[in-house]
Amino acid sequence: MSERLSLALEFLEQSRQQIDQALERSIRDGAASPRLDEAMRYSVLGGGKRVRPALCLAAARAIGADPLAALTPACALELVHAYSLVHDDLPAMDDDDLRRGRPTVHIAFDEASAILAGDALQTLAFALLAEAPELSDQQRIAMIRELATASGHQGMVGGQAIDLESVGRQLTIEQLESMHRHKTGALIEASVRLGALTSSSVTDQQLAALSDFASALGLAFQVQDDLLDIEGDTEIIGKRQGSDAAREKPTYPALLGVSGAREHLEKLLDQAQRALDSFGEEAEVLRAMADYVVARSH
Amino acid sequence: MSERLSLALEFLEQSRQQIDQALERSIRDGAASPRLDEAMRYSVLGGGKRVRPALCLAAARAIGADPLAALTPACALELVHAYSLVHDDLPAMDDDDLRRGRPTVHIAFDEASAILAGDALQTLAFALLAEAPELSDQQRIAMIRELATASGHQGMVGGQAIDLESVGRQLTIEQLESMHRHKTGALIEASVRLGALTSSSVTDQQLAALSDFASALGLAFQVQDDLLDIEGDTEIIGKRQGSDAAREKPTYPALLGVSGAREHLEKLLDQAQRALDSFGEEAEVLRAMADYVVARSH
Repeated sequence: MSERLSLALEFLEQSRQQIDQALERSIRDGAASPRLDEAMRYSVLGGGKRVRPALCLAAARAIGADPLAALTPACALELVHAYSLVHDDLPAMDDDDLRRGRPTVHIAFDEASAILAGDALQTLAFALLAEAPELSDQQRIAMIRELATASGHQGMVGGQAIDLESVGRQLTIEQLESMHRHKTGALIEASVRLGALTSSSVTDQQLAALSDFASALGLAFQVQDDLLDIEGDTEIIGKRQGSDAAREKPTYPALLGVSGAREHLEKLLDQAQRALDSFGEEAEVLRAMADYVVARSH
Repeated sequence: MSERLSLALEFLEQSRQQIDQALERSIRDGAASPRLDEAMRYSVLGGGKRVRPALCLAAARAIGADPLAALTPACALELVHAYSLVHDDLPAMDDDDLRRGRPTVHIAFDEASAILAGDALQTLAFALLAEAPELSDQQRIAMIRELATASGHQGMVGGQAIDLESVGRQLTIEQLESMHRHKTGALIEASVRLGALTSSSVTDQQLAALSDFASALGLAFQVQDDLLDIEGDTEIIGKRQGSDAAREKPTYPALLGVSGAREHLEKLLDQAQRALDSFGEEAEVLRAMADYVVARSH
């Protein structure tokens, strides 16, 4: 394993522990309905690689801020990601019964609980940002704005709608890319930008470079997801292997072939790394995270 | 009709027009998926009394602020209300096919569109607050915090979970009240508080009085809803008459009898009005709104 890959895995493991503890704290006091809280915890605390939070912390470090100052935005990002998975897995959407190696929320609980848990997780994401103790009101507002834009109808949810409309249809590579830019890319870009915004001295130029990095990385992430869906093992990837193909979802390998998709992946990784050229040593973890995204097996 | 009731109807009509225009503007630019935007517009712009936005504007006036400064928070409140109705109507939840006299969103579109439209409407609510042009960052954050608390697992969504758990069960009046305080009361209280927070000089004492007002009003609203479900006409109330009873939902008339529920309603109205005793003429519209809530026929 390359040195940079080890660095990424070490950073992921370390930030995963911090994130999981913080997430658990954030859901603890509520309990209007204990069952709802249980479904929320199940949705969020069932493993998961925590790639978005780790990117957020790594971006904070790249900009010279204390990664711990980015802990709250990192949690907010993971809550939005978790809510989108819970709703995505519903019978009316992707109808998945397995996620992260466990029954999905509507299987483990019921459909109504899954809908409500997803709803409440989204709310909690904005609540956390509005209360982030380590941030100024100005920073909180900037982050809420970025997260809302990235995750709403102009971002993630818009992408999910395009995705559902695309099942069984032939897409061009441009249409496929546009779908992924909305569906997963926007939140990955927001992850990096929220991390950078924990520094009040971040420049527009730095933010633009980080956006370029995250934009290429987000697409790379998706290409690798598509490749894993073909080549991965259900036990390792934690969801049904071949489920995209079974649902006739358009994928990169379907459009470019497996080796074409691999080439595309390498190009995107290169593009992401070059976007960080103006950063020094402090961006090493962020660079490592990009290597990890491409090398990961699940 | 009493003078105060006419005042309420006039204010409702006037603010409804302002709200509807503002809501339409807020969804207009998006269009990652035109179909999603259409489902969002259908969810939000299909009539509706706009009680929460009107309460928000009326509270702004009561506190001496320009009601127009409360237009953005008023829209955010209506978006949260609309998203909750869309998800509430889903087959896995209340399974309603009629709302405001029209097919519900999952009937007019499909279930996936209804889930996504609801998700995106919630996001949009927080996006609007984060960008409210007439508010300071401090006000925006205070409002986002209030809205998130009122609508998340400790508020509205928590109440919906309690509601679903209560179907077919016998509740005490205290349990029924706790459910409604979460499910509808919290957002009605937030409506009044957000309106008041548009004034940067609002005092804690004023906020507390307005909370007392809204808390009693929220319960009154629910008692009247339960009575309308028994006595109302499907064509006028815009949803199936008797649908609560058909689902074995616990209601005030079921627990207190119809005349007992009427008495309870009067007591709550009186409680709401007395909470405004320290306010002068400028709270007249708010008082009128309370009369309206109790007198309304749908």
